[in-house]
Amino acid sequence: MLVVHHLGVSQSERIVWLCEELGIPYELKNYARDAVTRMGPPDYKALHPLGTAPIITDGAVTLAETGAIMEYILAKYGDDGLMVKPDAPGYADYLFWYHFANGSVMPAEMSAMISNRLLKDQPVGKALMARSDRAFAMTEARLGEVPYLAGQDFTAADIVSVFALTTMRAFTGRTLDDFPNIRAYLARIGARPAYQRAMKKGDPDMAPMLA
Amino acid sequence: MLVVHHLGVSQSERIVWLCEELGIPYELKNYARDAVTRMGPPDYKALHPLGTAPIITDGAVTLAETGAIMEYILAKYGDDGLMVKPDAPGYADYLFWYHFANGSVMPAEMSAMISNRLLKDQPVGKALMARSDRAFAMTEARLGEVPYLAGQDFTAADIVSVFALTTMRAFTGRTLDDFPNIRAYLARIGARPAYQRAMKKGDPDMAPMLA
Repeated sequence: MLVVHHLGVSQSERIVWLCEELGIPYELKNYARDAVTRMGPPDYKALHPLGTAPIITDGAVTLAETGAIMEYILAKYGDDGLMVKPDAPGYADYLFWYHFANGSVMPAEMSAMISNRLLKDQPVGKALMARSDRAFAMTEARLGEVPYLAGQDFTAADIVSVFALTTMRAFTGRTLDDFPNIRAYLARIGARPAYQRAMKKGDPDMAPMLA
Repeated sequence: MLVVHHLGVSQSERIVWLCEELGIPYELKNYARDAVTRMGPPDYKALHPLGTAPIITDGAVTLAETGAIMEYILAKYGDDGLMVKPDAPGYADYLFWYHFANGSVMPAEMSAMISNRLLKDQPVGKALMARSDRAFAMTEARLGEVPYLAGQDFTAADIVSVFALTTMRAFTGRTLDDFPNIRAYLARIGARPAYQRAMKKGDPDMAPMLA
């Protein structure tokens, strides 16, 4: 049985959402952050040497790292059209946006979080924000051309990317005032029943930051 | 024709190496960093909105982001056994180490570089090093169990991971004194003719940091 170990208010919301989009059977185990340190609890960290969210278990397999977990679930449980295949016309776009999310955007947002919390008015803090600014500008431009990141259709590239545009902004302090295309996109995302179910099951006390 | 746009002393050495391992025809275009700022030159940045290395062009396709480029080349030109397939026993391990490289290790090394250059003796700088320390400890432990990151065989997970263990260390200041398994692994990597060819073609003036 696939078990999704979800740390509250974390990147692992993406795995819950993926399972809801696919409509596959899974067990959801919720873990709360420490009220003071906001770190994951010891029983979460004990699941895998990496200790970061997300983590899944599936029989003998224990797996961490969002990109790996998503590919594992899509390959093992069927992708239901959420992956663009190598012979489809939008393959390169799909690959770019799928890998951009964790390869560039999330590191940029982690730097933005450090800047926002610790280095806000220092030159190094402003330099750290530049990569995040570029990531949001690229995403805004893309969503002015097509309704979803890979093109005309909703795909796994959207599932891996939305966290940085929503929940993560609580940590970076960014608003969407200057990003109308991202706001319209998030309205489409927020209307998806699978997204609504995932947020309700994983983080019932959190209002999704869709605007 | 596949064109690999290689920025000197950068992450794009991995794409040159992949092409050499696969033995596929490709054109290599080398770009030098600015001697003072160490940034990529304007004609490199103009290739793609992201502007970071690596970038490839292939007919009408222009693609950035290491994870995307590697998957594109492996899918379009044949993987020659470098990918572990979903029905193979080591699939989850392969996925973890493939995605760990860009999802966790490279962001940790970027933070380590910031720490090393700008925040060396400050508490925030030391905190930034913790993720890099954990990444190196996990890699050292893994290479004490198996010869290659995915298991018994050399795979694309190794190609995506070696940069952080070698060239990137010039920027973070880390030595391999405490990592004998990583040193032995890098000796195996350095003995590969395809790795040697790639480093010679891409960065002829750089001695690979294999120790």
